[in-house]
Amino acid sequence: MDNSDKTIDLGFAKLDMERGERTGFKEVIFCQGKIDLHLLEICVALFEKNGEVFGTRATEMQSQMIKKIFAEKFPCAAVDYDEVSKILIIRKEPMQENHVGIGNIAVCTAGTADIPVGEEAARTAEYFGANVERFYDVGVAGLHRLLDRIDEIRKASAVVAVAGMEGALASVIGGLVKVPVICVPTSVGYGANLGGLSALLSMLNSCANGISVVNIDNGYGAGYIAAQINRLAEGIK
Amino acid sequence: MDNSDKTIDLGFAKLDMERGERTGFKEVIFCQGKIDLHLLEICVALFEKNGEVFGTRATEMQSQMIKKIFAEKFPCAAVDYDEVSKILIIRKEPMQENHVGIGNIAVCTAGTADIPVGEEAARTAEYFGANVERFYDVGVAGLHRLLDRIDEIRKASAVVAVAGMEGALASVIGGLVKVPVICVPTSVGYGANLGGLSALLSMLNSCANGISVVNIDNGYGAGYIAAQINRLAEGIK
Amino acid sequence: MDNSDKTIDLGFAKLDMERGERTGFKEVIFCQGKIDLHLLEICVALFEKNGEVFGTRATEMQSQMIKKIFAEKFPCAAVDYDEVSKILIIRKEPMQENHVGIGNIAVCTAGTADIPVGEEAARTAEYFGANVERFYDVGVAGLHRLLDRIDEIRKASAVVAVAGMEGALASVIGGLVKVPVICVPTSVGYGANLGGLSALLSMLNSCANGISVVNIDNGYGAGYIAAQINRLAEGIK
Amino acid sequence: MDNSDKTIDLGFAKLDMERGERTGFKEVIFCQGKIDLHLLEICVALFEKNGEVFGTRATEMQSQMIKKIFAEKFPCAAVDYDEVSKILIIRKEPMQENHVGIGNIAVCTAGTADIPVGEEAARTAEYFGANVERFYDVGVAGLHRLLDRIDEIRKASAVVAVAGMEGALASVIGGLVKVPVICVPTSVGYGANLGGLSALLSMLNSCANGISVVNIDNGYGAGYIAAQINRLAEGIK
Amino acid sequence: MDNSDKTIDLGFAKLDMERGERTGFKEVIFCQGKIDLHLLEICVALFEKNGEVFGTRATEMQSQMIKKIFAEKFPCAAVDYDEVSKILIIRKEPMQENHVGIGNIAVCTAGTADIPVGEEAARTAEYFGANVERFYDVGVAGLHRLLDRIDEIRKASAVVAVAGMEGALASVIGGLVKVPVICVPTSVGYGANLGGLSALLSMLNSCANGISVVNIDNGYGAGYIAAQINRLAEGIK
Amino acid sequence: MDNSDKTIDLGFAKLDMERGERTGFKEVIFCQGKIDLHLLEICVALFEKNGEVFGTRATEMQSQMIKKIFAEKFPCAAVDYDEVSKILIIRKEPMQENHVGIGNIAVCTAGTADIPVGEEAARTAEYFGANVERFYDVGVAGLHRLLDRIDEIRKASAVVAVAGMEGALASVIGGLVKVPVICVPTSVGYGANLGGLSALLSMLNSCANGISVVNIDNGYGAGYIAAQINRLAEGIK
Amino acid sequence: MDNSDKTIDLGFAKLDMERGERTGFKEVIFCQGKIDLHLLEICVALFEKNGEVFGTRATEMQSQMIKKIFAEKFPCAAVDYDEVSKILIIRKEPMQENHVGIGNIAVCTAGTADIPVGEEAARTAEYFGANVERFYDVGVAGLHRLLDRIDEIRKASAVVAVAGMEGALASVIGGLVKVPVICVPTSVGYGANLGGLSALLSMLNSCANGISVVNIDNGYGAGYIAAQINRLAEGIK
Amino acid sequence: MDNSDKTIDLGFAKLDMERGERTGFKEVIFCQGKIDLHLLEICVALFEKNGEVFGTRATEMQSQMIKKIFAEKFPCAAVDYDEVSKILIIRKEPMQENHVGIGNIAVCTAGTADIPVGEEAARTAEYFGANVERFYDVGVAGLHRLLDRIDEIRKASAVVAVAGMEGALASVIGGLVKVPVICVPTSVGYGANLGGLSALLSMLNSCANGISVVNIDNGYGAGYIAAQINRLAEGIK
Repeated sequence: MDNSDKTIDLGFAKLDMERGERTGFKEVIFCQGKIDLHLLEICVALFEKNGEVFGTRATEMQSQMIKKIFAEKFPCAAVDYDEVSKILIIRKEPMQENHVGIGNIAVCTAGTADIPVGEEAARTAEYFGANVERFYDVGVAGLHRLLDRIDEIRKASAVVAVAGMEGALASVIGGLVKVPVICVPTSVGYGANLGGLSALLSMLNSCANGISVVNIDNGYGAGYIAAQINRLAEGIK
Repeated sequence: MDNSDKTIDLGFAKLDMERGERTGFKEVIFCQGKIDLHLLEICVALFEKNGEVFGTRATEMQSQMIKKIFAEKFPCAAVDYDEVSKILIIRKEPMQENHVGIGNIAVCTAGTADIPVGEEAARTAEYFGANVERFYDVGVAGLHRLLDRIDEIRKASAVVAVAGMEGALASVIGGLVKVPVICVPTSVGYGANLGGLSALLSMLNSCANGISVVNIDNGYGAGYIAAQINRLAEGIK
Repeated sequence: MDNSDKTIDLGFAKLDMERGERTGFKEVIFCQGKIDLHLLEICVALFEKNGEVFGTRATEMQSQMIKKIFAEKFPCAAVDYDEVSKILIIRKEPMQENHVGIGNIAVCTAGTADIPVGEEAARTAEYFGANVERFYDVGVAGLHRLLDRIDEIRKASAVVAVAGMEGALASVIGGLVKVPVICVPTSVGYGANLGGLSALLSMLNSCANGISVVNIDNGYGAGYIAAQINRLAEGIK
Repeated sequence: MDNSDKTIDLGFAKLDMERGERTGFKEVIFCQGKIDLHLLEICVALFEKNGEVFGTRATEMQSQMIKKIFAEKFPCAAVDYDEVSKILIIRKEPMQENHVGIGNIAVCTAGTADIPVGEEAARTAEYFGANVERFYDVGVAGLHRLLDRIDEIRKASAVVAVAGMEGALASVIGGLVKVPVICVPTSVGYGANLGGLSALLSMLNSCANGISVVNIDNGYGAGYIAAQINRLAEGIK
Repeated sequence: MDNSDKTIDLGFAKLDMERGERTGFKEVIFCQGKIDLHLLEICVALFEKNGEVFGTRATEMQSQMIKKIFAEKFPCAAVDYDEVSKILIIRKEPMQENHVGIGNIAVCTAGTADIPVGEEAARTAEYFGANVERFYDVGVAGLHRLLDRIDEIRKASAVVAVAGMEGALASVIGGLVKVPVICVPTSVGYGANLGGLSALLSMLNSCANGISVVNIDNGYGAGYIAAQINRLAEGIK
Repeated sequence: MDNSDKTIDLGFAKLDMERGERTGFKEVIFCQGKIDLHLLEICVALFEKNGEVFGTRATEMQSQMIKKIFAEKFPCAAVDYDEVSKILIIRKEPMQENHVGIGNIAVCTAGTADIPVGEEAARTAEYFGANVERFYDVGVAGLHRLLDRIDEIRKASAVVAVAGMEGALASVIGGLVKVPVICVPTSVGYGANLGGLSALLSMLNSCANGISVVNIDNGYGAGYIAAQINRLAEGIK
Repeated sequence: MDNSDKTIDLGFAKLDMERGERTGFKEVIFCQGKIDLHLLEICVALFEKNGEVFGTRATEMQSQMIKKIFAEKFPCAAVDYDEVSKILIIRKEPMQENHVGIGNIAVCTAGTADIPVGEEAARTAEYFGANVERFYDVGVAGLHRLLDRIDEIRKASAVVAVAGMEGALASVIGGLVKVPVICVPTSVGYGANLGGLSALLSMLNSCANGISVVNIDNGYGAGYIAAQINRLAEGIK
Repeated sequence: MDNSDKTIDLGFAKLDMERGERTGFKEVIFCQGKIDLHLLEICVALFEKNGEVFGTRATEMQSQMIKKIFAEKFPCAAVDYDEVSKILIIRKEPMQENHVGIGNIAVCTAGTADIPVGEEAARTAEYFGANVERFYDVGVAGLHRLLDRIDEIRKASAVVAVAGMEGALASVIGGLVKVPVICVPTSVGYGANLGGLSALLSMLNSCANGISVVNIDNGYGAGYIAAQINRLAEGIK
C-alpha cells in the first residue's frame, strides 16, 4: 500500500492527491454507480485531505446519505446538492453569498431539456473559480432568441454550447464569436438521434471554426475546459 | 412479353409507360452504372414513345455516346448535358430560351461543394415545369449570407435545402419559412461525416418544423417533391 | 430579460411568440420529459397569449395534472387529451362538433401497431386546419387491403405513410400517387429493425419518387408538413 | 498430407471431395481474389476428379487464362464464361442445347441493375439441375409490372427475390405466394443504402411470411437454396 | 368499409381472410404490444371465421385474459398457452393426443438459452402440419454433442438452426446436410453480441451453403419456412 | 438420449463431461438468465459428477435458492457466493484457508467501477488453480498510480487489463511488460462509450504489442486464458 | 448580388469578408475537391481584398496551378506550399525568416504516420500568430518518449494531441498538464479502427479532464482552437 | 534531441531502443504507408543498432527499394522479402537453413484466402524464435479437414486461428484444445462481412473458452502473442 502524498489507497480506489498540483484542479468524484459505502469513504478521505469535495452525477438518495452521515461526523461541513445538475459539493463552511468568480464564461443551451447538462457545465466552471453567464433555450428554430443575446455572449472568454437533437446551435454560435466554443451534445431527442450520436456527429462536422466537442451529456468536461481557458485568459497558468 | 400501353418490355428493363398518368411525371432514367447498350436502348424507347428523355447521374462519356448516336439516328433531336448536375435531357427540339416555369421554388446550398446536388434538384424541378431560384453558399458559418436573402427565399412554395458536414442549414431555414423544406444531406465532408450520415441524422433530428429528408446526395428526389408541391400550390393536381 | 412581443422569457424557456407569423403555425409543446412545473408554466403562458395550446407526447399523468390545475385556474378552458396519439389540446372553448378542415390529407399505416404514430400525424394536421382521411392497417403483406382503397387515397393533396418493420408501404404508395408522400418510419418491430432504423433506411432508399422522410415515430412532423402542403394546395400561403 | 478420397490437399487448399455425398452438391470455386496459379490448380484438380467445374465471381481475365490453358491441356473441355453473372463452367463436353432442368424456380429482380445478381442465382440453380424462369425489372415503383406476372411466378417451387435500394420487392412477393422466397439484397443504390445494408435490413424485417435472406449480392447462395427446395419438391432427397 | 370475403375490417385492423388461399397458411396474430381489447377482438373475429387462432409472443397475462373471456363466450373452445414459446392456440376442440404431422423437420439450438426461440419455431411448424424433431443444446463448444445426433438430423427435409452469441452452429450444420438450413440468430449473449447482430452477421456470412437467415429471435418465421419446404417435400403445393 | 460418459443429457441441456479432458478445465455454468429449475438441475448434475460447481453471473437470488436447496439435499456441500464478482462456487468441503495457487497472474483495473469485472477474472483464475495479484484503480489519468506498481506487475506470467471508457490502460501496460496482456473492455462509461464498444475498439487497435481482447465485461474469459497461460508457464500442459 | 463589405459574391461562392472582425481570424479556403477555376477565383478575390490567402488540403497539382497563374498575375506574390501538411499560403511578400509567433502551443503526435495532421495543426496555429513546439512520435507504447519531454509540453498554453489507432495519447497527456488538450483522432490504422472512429471514440470517452475533440484528421480545426486559446493566454481578445 | 540509449530520435520518428529489454522483443517496423525516405532511414538506424530489421506490410516496391540501397550500403546484409506475408527481414547474414525454433505453435486458417494473414502470424512467431506448424484451409464447411488434423494441433502451446466470413473456426478449435487460441478475424468476404467486422464479432462472442482476439487482419499481433506464450511454455520469461 502506498499512502504517500501522491496517492491515498483505499483498496478499491486510489485517490490521486497530486492531481491539483499536476493539472491545476483537484480530483473530483463521479458519483454515478458508486455504492454508498465507497462513495462515503471517498468523500470522507477527500474532505479530510482537501477540506472540500465536488461530486458529479449524484442521485438524490446519495446526497441524502452523505448529508446524514456528514451531519453526524463533521457537524460544521456544508453539504449542498443541486437537483438539476446533480452536483454535490461539501465545504468546510458555507459558500459566501457574494462570492464572484473571475473572468466570464457563457453557457448556452438549445432547449429547456438541455438545461441539466448546461447546469452541470456552469456549476463545474463556477466551482473551479469562474464567473458564468447562462443563456438557456436559445436554439436555432427561433433564431432571434440567440441573436438578441449574442452581444452578451461575445463578452465571454469561452462559450459552452449544449444541444441535443441536431445540435445546430454549435455551428451558429461558432460563426459568431472569437473564442473557443466547447460543445456538449446531449441525449435529448428520440429515434434517429441515437442517444445523442446525431448531435455529436453534427458538432464534430461543424462548418464553423473554433468548435471542439466532449462526450454526450458531459457538462462537467465542458465546464472544466471552459474554466481552464478562462483561467488562462485571466493571466493564470 | 407484354408490350402493352402500360409497359415497354426490353427484356433487361420494363419501362413504365403508365407512370405519367399515375404519378403526374413520366419515367426518368437513373444513368449511373448502366452499360452503354442498355442506356441507349432505354433512351431510344422513351424518346420514341414520349418525345423526350430525362436522365440523371449521366457521365460525360455516356452523354457523348448518346449525342453521337442520336445525331445519326434522330438528327432533329436536341441532346443537352449539364456537367455540374450530370443531367442529360433529350428533346425533339431545343428548349425555347424564354421558357419560364410556373410558381417558385428556392434551392439553397450550404457550401460551394454542395452545388452539384443543388443543381440536380434545380434542373429536375425546372424539367418538371417549375420556376427555380438558386441561393448557393449560404451556410450558417456566415449567417448574414442567409439572412440577407431570406426575404426572397420566403417567396417560394417549397424550399430545397442542400448541405453536407453538419447540415445545420436545414434547421435554420426551417425556423424562418412557412413552406415545406425538403432537405438533401450531401456526402461533402470527411472523417466523422461518415459519407453523409452526419448531415442526414442532423436533418432527421431537426428542432425546426416542416423539415423532411431524402437520401444523401439525392438532388433529383428533392427537386421532384418540390415540383409536386409547387404544382399543387399553383392549383394543379 | 426580453419579454418583447417576439419572446416570452420564462428563464428555463424562451417561448417564440413570433413563430406563427414567421412559419404560419404557432409554437407547440413537446411534453415528453418536461417536469410538471415547467409544463404547466408553459401551458399557462401560451394559453394566456394565444388562447390555445397544443402539446405532443403528453403522458396520461401530465394530462391529468394540467386538467386539474386548469379546472381551477381557467374554468372555461376545454382540456382534451387523446390516449392513442398522446396529444393534449387546450382551447378557450370546446371544438365545435361539426368543424371541418380544409382540403384532404390521407394518413396510412402499415399495421395496427403503427396507429399511435398515425394518429399523432392525423390530429396534428387536423389541429392545423386540415381535413384528414385515415387508412389504417393497409400494409403490403396483404396488398389488396391497400389497392382496395387507393382511389380514395389518390384524392389527397398529401399522403402520410406510417410503417415500421421494413417500411415497404412507402414505396408502394409512392408508385401509385401524384402528390408528396411524407413517410414516418416507426419503431415497431424487433431484432434487426434496430429501433426503427430499418424502416428509416428503407424509406430513404425508396425506388419510388415523391418520398421524403421524417424522424422515427415523428407523427407530429409528418402531420405538420402535410398541413403545409394541403394549405398550399388550397391556395393559402 | 491426406490425399484420401475425402480431401485433395493442394497445400494452399484442401478440396472437399466428400461434399457431393454429404450435401448433395459438389464443391464449387469462389474465384474472386484467387491468384491465377491457385485458381488454375484448383480447376485442374476438380476437373480431373469430377469431370466438371463451377466457378463464381470469375473475372473476364481469369476466364481467359483458364480458357487458354485448358485449350492446351484438355482440348476436349468446354469452358463457358458468362459476363453478366461472372460464372465460369468447365465441362467435359458442351452442354446439350435442349437440356431442360427439373421443377420450376422463379428468379425476380427489382431493377435492371440487379440483373447480374439475379443471373448468378439463376445459373447456379440451373447448374444444380433446376428449370428457372426469369422475371426481371418488376420492382414495386411500377406495381403492375409485378402483378402482370404473378400467376407465372406462383407456379414456382421456390422464388428468388433480388433487390437493392429499399428491397420492398421481397415483402410484396412474400405476401402473394405459397412457397419460400429466398431474398438477395443487392448493393445497388447509394448514400444511405450503406452498401446494401438498407435492403438487407428490409428483408430481415419483412412483414410478410416465408421470407429468408442471404448475404448482400449473394446470388449463388440463393440459387443453391432454391435448387435444394426444388429438388425436394420434385421428390429428390 | 369493405367486409368482403377478402378482408374483415375492424377499423384498427384489417384481417386478411384471403391469406390462406393466397399463401397456403392462414393469418396468425403477433400478440406482442397489442392492447387487450384489440387482441381479444382479433381473436374472436378469427375464431368465428376460421375456427382456430394461432398467436405468437403472447404474454402470460394476455393468455389468461383470453382464456377467461373465451371460457365465457365460447365454452367449447380449447385455449392452449405454452410458456416457453409464448404461443397461444385456440381451437374448436382439443388437439388429439396422437396427432402426427407430416414429413420431418429438425429444430436445433446451440444452447439452453436458445430454447424459447427453438420452441417457437418447432410449434409453429407443428401448427402448420409438420412433424418436428428437437435437438437442443448441441452447440459447437462441445462438438460431439452435435456429431452424435447428425444422422438423425440428416433425415429432415429442412433444418432450423437457432443460435446466439457467435452463431457458429449454422455453418457447421450447413456443411453436413443436404437440405436448406433456416437460421435464427438469437439475442442470447451480451456486450459485443449487440443484441443478436453478431449471430445474425455470422449466419449471413456463413462459409457453408444452403444457409438462409431470418430476423433475430424470429422462431416463428423459421418454423413457417420449414413448414413450407416440408410441405413441398411431401408433394403438397 | 445419450448419457454416455461424454454427455449428460438433461433434455434442455447436454452437459459436456468430456470437456475437462479435452480442454483441461471442466464445464462451468453461465447462470445469467437461467430459470431456477434449470440452474438447480444443472448444479446438481455437475456436483454429483464432478464434486464441484463453478457458476458465473449468478444473481443474489439464484445463490440463495441454490444455498437453500443444497443445504437440504447435500448438507456437507459448501456453497460460496461472492457479491462483487457474482461467482457461485459449490464444493464438497470448504476451501482451505491457506490454499495457494500456482504461478502469478496480475489483474489490473483502470477504475473502481471496473472492479466487478476484475474480480470475475481474478476469481476465475484462482478457481482454475492460479495465484492472482490485484492492482485496482490504476488508470492512466493518474499515471503514477500504475508506474508505482509496475515492477510487481512485471512479475506475472499473464496480465489481465480491465478498463472501460477509452480503455487506454491496455496500451500503456502492453508497452511495459513481456507477457501477454488479456484485455477486458467494460461497459463502464456513458454516451459515446456505446455500452463498452469504445473501450473494445481501443484495445483492438492498440499501438502496443502482446494485446488480445475478449468480449465486453467478460472477466471470466480473461481469467480462463490467463490461467491457461499461467499453467503453461508453470510447465503444465 | 450583394458585394457589400460583408460578402464578396462570386456566384458559386459567397466569401465572408466580415469573418475577421466577427471571429478574429479571416476566412480560409478548404481546397479539397474544388475545381481549378473556382479555387483560383477564390484565391484571387481573397488575395486582392486581404493581401494574403491560407488554404488547407491543397493537392500538389492545385499548388502548381496557383503558383503558375499567380506568377503571371501577381509577380510579387509569394506562394508557399508544404507537401506534408498540404497547406498553401500566399502572401504579398515572403515571410521574414526570423518571424516569431506569440505564446506557446505544443503539438504532439503518437506516431510518425500522424505527422501530416500534426503539421496541419502546427502550421495553422503559426499562421494565426502562435509560436509552436512540435513533439512527434511520442505514443504510449514507449512511454518514456513522452515522459522525457513532458516538462517542455507543460510550458504550453494549449496542447494539440494527434493520434490514430487507439488514441491513448490523449488521456495520458490529459492527466499530466494544466491546459486544454485539443485532440485530433487520425485515420491511421486499419481494420477495427473504422477509418478513425476508434481513436475518435477513445478521445471522447477519455478518463482524463481537459480533453476536447475535433473531427478525424482535422488538424486545421485543432490548430485554430489552440491559436484562440493561446491568444487569450497572451491577453488578446 | 535525446539520442540516449533508450531512444534514437530521427525527428520524424523516435525509435524505442529500450523495447527489447522492456518487452522481450525488439521494435519492428510497420511499413505500410511509410514514404521511402522514412522507411529507409528507420531500416538503416535499426540495422546499425540491432544488426537486424523486421518489417511488416511492406509492398513489393518498398522491398525492392530497400534491397537496392542495402546492396550498395551494406553489401553483406541479407534482405529477404516474402510476397505472401509481405514481411521484410534484413539480417547481417543469411538465416541458416536448418535453423529450428523452440516449442510449438499451430497456425490454422479457415480458407485459402486467409493464408496471407496466417503467414504473417507464422513468420512473426518464427522470427521471434518459435517453431510453427501450419494448418491451412481447414474451415468448418468441411469439418473433416479440421478433425483429421486436430491431434497435431493439440500438440501446440498456442494456436492462432485465422478466419474471415463468419469466423466459426475459432469456436470449433476453442472447444477442442487446452491452450489459448489467439484469433485473427480477416477481411475476407463481402457484403455483410463489413470489412471483417462479422468475423471479429463472432470471435469476441465465441461460446468456447480460451478465445481472445486481435484486430482484423492483424497476423503480426497474433504471432507475437503466440510467441510470448510459447516462450513461457518453454520456461523462458
